[in-house]
Amino acid sequence: MADQSSNQMWGGRFAAGPDAIMEAINASIGFDKRMAAQDIAGSRAHAAMLGATGILDPKDVEAIREGLLTVLSEIEGGTFGFSTALEDIHMNVEARLKEIIGEPAGRLHTGRSRNDQVATDFKLWVRDQLDAAETGLLALMKALVAQAEAGADWVMPGFTHLQTAQPVTWGHHMMAYVEMFARDLSRVRDARARMNESPLGAAALAGTGFAIDRHMTAEALGFDRPAANSLDAVSDRDFALELLGTASICAMHLSRFAEELVIWSSAQFRFVVLSDRFSTGSSIMPQKKNPDAAELIRAKVGRIFGAQTALMMVMKGLPLAYSKDMQEDKEQVFDAADNWMLALAAMEGMVRDMTANREALEAAAGAGFSTATDLADWLVRELGLPFRDAHHITGSLVAKAEAKGCDLPDLSLDDMQSVHDGITQAVYDVLGVHNSVASRISYGGTAPVRVREQAARWKEILG
Amino acid sequence: MADQSSNQMWGGRFAAGPDAIMEAINASIGFDKRMAAQDIAGSRAHAAMLGATGILDPKDVEAIREGLLTVLSEIEGGTFGFSTALEDIHMNVEARLKEIIGEPAGRLHTGRSRNDQVATDFKLWVRDQLDAAETGLLALMKALVAQAEAGADWVMPGFTHLQTAQPVTWGHHMMAYVEMFARDLSRVRDARARMNESPLGAAALAGTGFAIDRHMTAEALGFDRPAANSLDAVSDRDFALELLGTASICAMHLSRFAEELVIWSSAQFRFVVLSDRFSTGSSIMPQKKNPDAAELIRAKVGRIFGAQTALMMVMKGLPLAYSKDMQEDKEQVFDAADNWMLALAAMEGMVRDMTANREALEAAAGAGFSTATDLADWLVRELGLPFRDAHHITGSLVAKAEAKGCDLPDLSLDDMQSVHDGITQAVYDVLGVHNSVASRISYGGTAPVRVREQAARWKEILG
Amino acid sequence: MADQSSNQMWGGRFAAGPDAIMEAINASIGFDKRMAAQDIAGSRAHAAMLGATGILDPKDVEAIREGLLTVLSEIEGGTFGFSTALEDIHMNVEARLKEIIGEPAGRLHTGRSRNDQVATDFKLWVRDQLDAAETGLLALMKALVAQAEAGADWVMPGFTHLQTAQPVTWGHHMMAYVEMFARDLSRVRDARARMNESPLGAAALAGTGFAIDRHMTAEALGFDRPAANSLDAVSDRDFALELLGTASICAMHLSRFAEELVIWSSAQFRFVVLSDRFSTGSSIMPQKKNPDAAELIRAKVGRIFGAQTALMMVMKGLPLAYSKDMQEDKEQVFDAADNWMLALAAMEGMVRDMTANREALEAAAGAGFSTATDLADWLVRELGLPFRDAHHITGSLVAKAEAKGCDLPDLSLDDMQSVHDGITQAVYDVLGVHNSVASRISYGGTAPVRVREQAARWKEILG
Amino acid sequence: MADQSSNQMWGGRFAAGPDAIMEAINASIGFDKRMAAQDIAGSRAHAAMLGATGILDPKDVEAIREGLLTVLSEIEGGTFGFSTALEDIHMNVEARLKEIIGEPAGRLHTGRSRNDQVATDFKLWVRDQLDAAETGLLALMKALVAQAEAGADWVMPGFTHLQTAQPVTWGHHMMAYVEMFARDLSRVRDARARMNESPLGAAALAGTGFAIDRHMTAEALGFDRPAANSLDAVSDRDFALELLGTASICAMHLSRFAEELVIWSSAQFRFVVLSDRFSTGSSIMPQKKNPDAAELIRAKVGRIFGAQTALMMVMKGLPLAYSKDMQEDKEQVFDAADNWMLALAAMEGMVRDMTANREALEAAAGAGFSTATDLADWLVRELGLPFRDAHHITGSLVAKAEAKGCDLPDLSLDDMQSVHDGITQAVYDVLGVHNSVASRISYGGTAPVRVREQAARWKEILG
Repeated sequence: MADQSSNQMWGGRFAAGPDAIMEAINASIGFDKRMAAQDIAGSRAHAAMLGATGILDPKDVEAIREGLLTVLSEIEGGTFGFSTALEDIHMNVEARLKEIIGEPAGRLHTGRSRNDQVATDFKLWVRDQLDAAETGLLALMKALVAQAEAGADWVMPGFTHLQTAQPVTWGHHMMAYVEMFARDLSRVRDARARMNESPLGAAALAGTGFAIDRHMTAEALGFDRPAANSLDAVSDRDFALELLGTASICAMHLSRFAEELVIWSSAQFRFVVLSDRFSTGSSIMPQKKNPDAAELIRAKVGRIFGAQTALMMVMKGLPLAYSKDMQEDKEQVFDAADNWMLALAAMEGMVRDMTANREALEAAAGAGFSTATDLADWLVRELGLPFRDAHHITGSLVAKAEAKGCDLPDLSLDDMQSVHDGITQAVYDVLGVHNSVASRISYGGTAPVRVREQAARWKEILG
Repeated sequence: MADQSSNQMWGGRFAAGPDAIMEAINASIGFDKRMAAQDIAGSRAHAAMLGATGILDPKDVEAIREGLLTVLSEIEGGTFGFSTALEDIHMNVEARLKEIIGEPAGRLHTGRSRNDQVATDFKLWVRDQLDAAETGLLALMKALVAQAEAGADWVMPGFTHLQTAQPVTWGHHMMAYVEMFARDLSRVRDARARMNESPLGAAALAGTGFAIDRHMTAEALGFDRPAANSLDAVSDRDFALELLGTASICAMHLSRFAEELVIWSSAQFRFVVLSDRFSTGSSIMPQKKNPDAAELIRAKVGRIFGAQTALMMVMKGLPLAYSKDMQEDKEQVFDAADNWMLALAAMEGMVRDMTANREALEAAAGAGFSTATDLADWLVRELGLPFRDAHHITGSLVAKAEAKGCDLPDLSLDDMQSVHDGITQAVYDVLGVHNSVASRISYGGTAPVRVREQAARWKEILG
Repeated sequence: MADQSSNQMWGGRFAAGPDAIMEAINASIGFDKRMAAQDIAGSRAHAAMLGATGILDPKDVEAIREGLLTVLSEIEGGTFGFSTALEDIHMNVEARLKEIIGEPAGRLHTGRSRNDQVATDFKLWVRDQLDAAETGLLALMKALVAQAEAGADWVMPGFTHLQTAQPVTWGHHMMAYVEMFARDLSRVRDARARMNESPLGAAALAGTGFAIDRHMTAEALGFDRPAANSLDAVSDRDFALELLGTASICAMHLSRFAEELVIWSSAQFRFVVLSDRFSTGSSIMPQKKNPDAAELIRAKVGRIFGAQTALMMVMKGLPLAYSKDMQEDKEQVFDAADNWMLALAAMEGMVRDMTANREALEAAAGAGFSTATDLADWLVRELGLPFRDAHHITGSLVAKAEAKGCDLPDLSLDDMQSVHDGITQAVYDVLGVHNSVASRISYGGTAPVRVREQAARWKEILG
Repeated sequence: MADQSSNQMWGGRFAAGPDAIMEAINASIGFDKRMAAQDIAGSRAHAAMLGATGILDPKDVEAIREGLLTVLSEIEGGTFGFSTALEDIHMNVEARLKEIIGEPAGRLHTGRSRNDQVATDFKLWVRDQLDAAETGLLALMKALVAQAEAGADWVMPGFTHLQTAQPVTWGHHMMAYVEMFARDLSRVRDARARMNESPLGAAALAGTGFAIDRHMTAEALGFDRPAANSLDAVSDRDFALELLGTASICAMHLSRFAEELVIWSSAQFRFVVLSDRFSTGSSIMPQKKNPDAAELIRAKVGRIFGAQTALMMVMKGLPLAYSKDMQEDKEQVFDAADNWMLALAAMEGMVRDMTANREALEAAAGAGFSTATDLADWLVRELGLPFRDAHHITGSLVAKAEAKGCDLPDLSLDDMQSVHDGITQAVYDVLGVHNSVASRISYGGTAPVRVREQAARWKEILG
């Protein structure tokens, strides 16, 4: 965040002098210039309202409007000269506006202050990020549904403790992540709805005696309503914390998937092949393929939750209303949002590109007598045996198969009946990994028919 | 969490032997017995469904039902003998059930497993906490609204940087916290709605081949629907993290209020008097009143956010589906929820009991020429002066008052006009702290009329 | 932490009334009774000093001494009746002492207060934990060195990105953890040395007018010296934070090793077999072996770092000297220390018990042309080729081997020379995994000779 | 961290295409260029060693040396063209070196790899920061000692719970922070000593077959010794975590002091006046002085501990050796170190500049019968009364003073003796705030004589 020169200044020597130290710790323009577009949008809405309510002369309002557009085009065009001495984006914009239009620039500040202005800018910025996250989540969910549809009946090991527990389908595994990201999306939408109240016009903290119309500015900026308490409006950073909290859980989900991709890419698993675009190789070891993007995605939860920790600690114990501590909010949110978007985009790309190794998945799914529980369940369900007896019989059959070096479905019916004579040919319908997954048709189960239903349901939702 | 004897065992010596070490690290009955009621409710719903779908014999179902009621009454009555060797609450209940009813106990496990059972129990427990938090938040908000109504027109300093910025009203300050806790309540309700899907019947991870009816058990347990993916259902701990995240932000709000109460209780501020019930005194220093409860509430954000940190870190990078790491979820959530409820209850009690020191508040509100901005605004609004000129004139008037050792409203009109001859008698309508707050009538502003409107609005909402 | 009954009280209803709420949030005896032995040790040292300096009458001192021993034996014997109304361990002990010996009990408080007393008790408790951690770390390091000695020349894959990069030795991998835990041990010792200053006699915060001898009590309690500033002595919780910070990094190391053990135990890797004592199986899937202890150890870093987060947040922004917030310190440290010790003990047990699967390790080590870099290095070193050429030639040889379906050492010299005619028979000395590891003899390298040197060095250090 | 354009790219749209996404998530040159000087220093040491050991031709070594100096001067001069396509600082430097000197550039990589190179660079950078922190801490401690010497006998309230407990001296309060920062300094030095082992020559992870001399490069770079295990050397980030942990505790100390300065600057306390250089004012409210720097310093603990959280979470559960996740280490440490240095420098400046308001401090010190405990202690010490009686008598005297509207020392001896006739004229020697502090001469106590001793001791240590 600080550049090399500031590090040389502070890191190595403490001789910079108090004025330089104060400027370095106090100025925010180095980062809050990212809110320039939001700042100008807020000012335009405020100026228009001051005109509509007759507080400002229409001529002044028009001058302000045109001046702000000029400033915006200078910033977007890269010709704007940001000044650290002017501390923050609000002062930079205002000072330039005054250069361009003169006196009326000062009147823009009627009925507002820097405290509600920064809250408004930051809320608009955060809201944009929540919208971007929605886009990213939807894209990722679509990519997962596509994988699920393609592999609704590919079998793979279902793990607990990273040990094969029961066979599942590739599609079922992909759809588990759809559910996880759907909860993230739901949190994003809740957060957006909750934060969509306008601080503008709360002024320094007490409201104002000017007859402003806060509902009008709220509407102009896409807010649902003005915030109902001016003290709260300038003291509140819940919206930033809720973005960070939502992003953290989403990043945790991404870390789980990334971990799986790293493990699945190992030479020992070989469950998936990641595309060259999201991995790096070795010039002389052709089979080495480092899942760089997956590893970096796995790490992002640290960075994003670190930002949440930082802002939680900053806000802890702050009296109302505004305290300067709160200036530390933006860099954390900027960095977390950037990395959240990047991780979503990279994961979406990886999911689109990745190729499941069906043979390896199926071979692994059947190893270790993974359908033994299917057999036990069959004995309970079809022969009405108590669980304890069913488990005992299954154990004997597994031992027999192990002794023969074969899998359960490879045992003959005679072998079966030698352990329990009630077993019939029908038992083979549940043995073997394909039969196993096909049988698990309870709602939410791994059976291809269930997976296809869920995939279809989500396709319709995702549009 | 570990008791003294386990500390003596592990903390001092490492000679306990592997079996004792494994039992100490592995068993969860020491804490998950708190979910006994939820565990039995889940089992009752499952058994009833197994009967309704014909999977179990009605006689067995009835035996299970009666047996579970017996177990529940033993636990509630304190006569149940928990066993560490049986590891967790599920096994403890099941083993006792088998002692009471024999064989049919084993059939209860048809179409479910420990993985979906623990997820169901834990979700039910978490849901109860969200309901309790709603109750606590509503009570606290009511107490704040009552304070706000009583003091809608009491003036006090509005602080920025802990420096008096402008006068505000006591009611306005109280209502700021109502807004904050209202957002917490909104998050609680969103979290509850989102998590209210039943994992029961997801079985180990893949669903089951028994023809169970997950919608029926979901409904019986008050869930809105069954979870749509069995892998996700047993791997998901979002509901726990969302409780922790919601509680953390709420605890941060409590820490801000608590900090204010600590500062306001100091001999230097004397803004409030806390009741003896929530503070401690000194036998020989009659004016010393330690705000113990406020300080402890201030600290709770650490504990609760620490729990969130713990569980976020546990979940980071875990492959699907269940891993034993996830057993670390409960103690964090139990402790955080307990302390959240306690902090809400203690804050509600303090707010009800506390007495504002109106004289000290009003005296502090007027100090430091806190209505200077009102004067400047008046010059802009009424005389149409540019801001820069208004500020210059105000500065001169403040200097004049300071020289005379009086406040701005104490200056004579002659004094006023000697600085700017356009000033009229009307200026006195905005000077003085009561005039200042009365003037700030913008929506959400600190004027008593606005505060009373907001208090009335919230009273209606809170019922 | 809170027991079931308190949860019922606060979690469900807020009707408990203010007195019950205050007692629940305020009393610490529920957890600080773990410091009973430390509390009594501190009091004995203080009483002896009060006698030696003539502040107390020898008769009173003797009465106190005997009374404290009685209290200690009651506590150790389990017959002591702890009272919540008496709030904390200090008051409980003092009240009982007064019951036993009467008036002189009150004199024990001469020249000290609860603030320095709690700091002293807690420091003694923390110091005991640092000593226990030292014991645990040493035992774990010995177990690792034993594994390293046994397998100094067993080859296994050296991973980067969980992809095989180069062969390493089992011993080398084990010794990497010895280095990591050695740094933990070094941190433990630094923390112990730094914290070993006595707060006793700092009194409430300002010191005392009684002519106490703080050096004497410091010495009696094993402290290196008395703390030099009484305000700092009662405000400081660095020692607790440093235990937590040290434990967190150690737990992170444990999480890395645990993750490896979980992956290595998978059916796909099969690098190690964990003993039955630290894993759980399936009655019907004989090859399933859940690494429960490893997973729980992996999770402990969350819990311990969560405690650090909690206490950091509690301490943030607290004015000097004592604030009640600081009462939240103990539960975090108690829980973190317990789990740290438990994780160390469980890991030590697992390491002792685990069996490396030498065949699987060696097979995996050689897969994927993992010695290609050895070949390239040989071409540079022996033939003086530029790196770029060496890599080009190696790539061609790998392609040739791949086409033949063999490994590099299986190529004939003719095959080699057909790519570069300078290659000689000597090249085979670096090909193959055993030659590869044997060649890496740089200091700290993976060659068995280096590993044995390091193991021997550590054996001598560890004694 | 990410600039506006990257935000526009990822935040708003996900249409950038996989290659751009991969570059954005994968490249580190945007931040690791801060390690350019360290990278070149490491390469120079390595090249010199390759020459000394005869592995490289002296001519090549000389070409490398001169080439690296050219690259360094280009970077320092700002003419170096960093390339994102070249990913990181190592590749950028190496590519430019090859442009300048041709073929020999490739030989520089003999016996090392990017994994040990990045560990070496980062360690050198971290070590520089620890040295800078030492400088900053020493300067701050000197400023505090100067304040302590000036005000060794100025009385002020000693607070517990932000309530006046007993009078202390300004010097004593300042010296409490000297002790706190001294512990920070001690941690900095321990961390520096522990981390000072060279990873260089660990190569990718296994060491190398080239006959390199790691002791020589270690010595050239100021390391105490080479790291003893090559796997650990490239996997270890303890040094970064220990910097963050040390910085976090130090930042917590700074937050406590900053909180006090904010409170002390309030109109209600008026204990200190901060200089204009570290605060901001209001053009029309002359007495408003916002303690901006103090507030920003208070917030830094969040940012720094957030970085520690981030890196702890990144490292959790990473298998050995290098994983790409670890690339997330640098930005956290860079940002935390920058802000640590800045906070130290700003605090030092504030302490130097601040002026204690002696009158306000003394008035507050005496309020609330703050010397009542002195009176009680005197009754115990001089009259041999039991504590209970002494407290009872003191309570009566306080009540008498309160009734008369005076302080304890203002009571006449007759008044005193009417409550207890043993009281003599000597009692007045401990009453009043100056007598109170003068009496607390126990080691570490608040008496001016003790404070001056401690200040003198520290002056000698600090030089």
